[in-house]
Amino acid sequence: MTRQELVHLIRQKRSYLCVGLDSDLEKIPGWLREESDDPVFEFNKGIINATIDFAVAYKPNLAFYESRGSQGWQSLEKTMAYLAAHPSGPVFSIADAKRGDIGNSATQYARAFLERLDFDSITVNPYMGQDTLQPFLNIKGKWAIVLALTSNPGANDFQLWQPQLPMLLERLGIKTEQWKRFFELIIEQSQQWGTPDNLMFVVGATRPEMLQNIRQIAPVHFFLIPGVGAQGGSLEDVSRLAMTKDCGILVNVSRNIIFASSGRDFAQKAGEAALSYQQQMEKLLAEKKVV
Amino acid sequence: MTRQELVHLIRQKRSYLCVGLDSDLEKIPGWLREESDDPVFEFNKGIINATIDFAVAYKPNLAFYESRGSQGWQSLEKTMAYLAAHPSGPVFSIADAKRGDIGNSATQYARAFLERLDFDSITVNPYMGQDTLQPFLNIKGKWAIVLALTSNPGANDFQLWQPQLPMLLERLGIKTEQWKRFFELIIEQSQQWGTPDNLMFVVGATRPEMLQNIRQIAPVHFFLIPGVGAQGGSLEDVSRLAMTKDCGILVNVSRNIIFASSGRDFAQKAGEAALSYQQQMEKLLAEKKVV
Repeated sequence: MTRQELVHLIRQKRSYLCVGLDSDLEKIPGWLREESDDPVFEFNKGIINATIDFAVAYKPNLAFYESRGSQGWQSLEKTMAYLAAHPSGPVFSIADAKRGDIGNSATQYARAFLERLDFDSITVNPYMGQDTLQPFLNIKGKWAIVLALTSNPGANDFQLWQPQLPMLLERLGIKTEQWKRFFELIIEQSQQWGTPDNLMFVVGATRPEMLQNIRQIAPVHFFLIPGVGAQGGSLEDVSRLAMTKDCGILVNVSRNIIFASSGRDFAQKAGEAALSYQQQMEKLLAEKKVV
Repeated sequence: MTRQELVHLIRQKRSYLCVGLDSDLEKIPGWLREESDDPVFEFNKGIINATIDFAVAYKPNLAFYESRGSQGWQSLEKTMAYLAAHPSGPVFSIADAKRGDIGNSATQYARAFLERLDFDSITVNPYMGQDTLQPFLNIKGKWAIVLALTSNPGANDFQLWQPQLPMLLERLGIKTEQWKRFFELIIEQSQQWGTPDNLMFVVGATRPEMLQNIRQIAPVHFFLIPGVGAQGGSLEDVSRLAMTKDCGILVNVSRNIIFASSGRDFAQKAGEAALSYQQQMEKLLAEKKVV
């Protein structure tokens, strides 16, 4: 999907909601496990049908599929085929796989997710450098979504690391502004390898105080923003700080939508939760004159 | 497998060879593709049987399995079951998956690789911080192998990044030694989260000039060293620089062993290549008085 098509979809649905398919077999309704041969796929179908009018993107988290081995991969393959054929499509699909490996391995991962499973995009870990990103950027119409600042506590350990001037120099009044945080270096550097048409960044909603600054470093690129909902990020805060004139953000919500109910009405409640997010998003889009 | 058991295995086999099962369907012998329902598993069986007397570890690279979807995962599951039941076992198994995700997803990946597939270890990307490593370190008898300095060209982009002092200060003769390279920071920091009994580091063979220094930062931990063979690293150089008194290194070779021949004799030739590495390793172990 091109950037133009994605923005068109956002304006059409008045939504920038991404539904995270973190479809944990242990958390989906118990009756599905008893009644279906592939309860995870059945669960995803229910969630997709109930939310697709309010969401522009879906993001299966690979961890929850791989934990069930080849069976889990089959559920994922069926989910992607179902999404591709959906009459209310197309939607933007994100393989939340966080892959990153040397060139020939990265080429295999690109094949797995962007060709074989036909995802529009994949989340990629930048630690191993340019040749690990390039194979994902080389496929026309597909996207790499680079981890920049994530929403978890561990983001403090390396992503936010910043060299400190020796105390002696600091006492002399020498300023440290010339040193960037590590994730800022990653955003600046990766922009040279892709374009706003094939590269996005993951920026967590749990650190709104950083969002404005990040938007200055990457004024045009789309951000995929996790962390709203269960992790505590505020939809209004992140939208006001990071939205651009063509929206420029996808906000992911997983648990607050897909596990809104554990009963027979799980899909209906997911649809209601997604509608509520869409309604808030419509207001925020109008505020910024995107729609 | 405990560290004690791994060291025992190394002394017993007089080898620290890890065979990389980068079993690319397009590169395995053509006749296997025609004659077998699961040519990748057949290939792996042949390689394992021919090399297991000379190798202490096997490392399937997940990229080459995932690129074939759920079928590829089935080949991997069968390979792991075959290894587990092998009469010449046990061997140390490494899931070269380079995973790294927030806590609850990391827990799922740990389940996928260290429990369900029963690997002894998994390679892990540290960019997202402590909570992404912890679930792998929490499982008794299992290992996390943290990416530190990798063997690819892109390692220059971020891993080797080092803050530079402003030129003005440099002219005043102020030294920059207090700033570490980024991968050194990662090695120092991760050591606080695990022990030499459950944490290893990936250190590429293509930068021998750094190995001695890395050994000083992590004097006891095992290193998994890729990059010998097709990527150009020298077995002698890395062994002399990084070996400890209980060996402390696993050297991975993939293509030079598994694709030593593309004919009917592929397994035999792989065995001969593995034997040749084992013989060199025996000398190097004796030189360092490990055996």
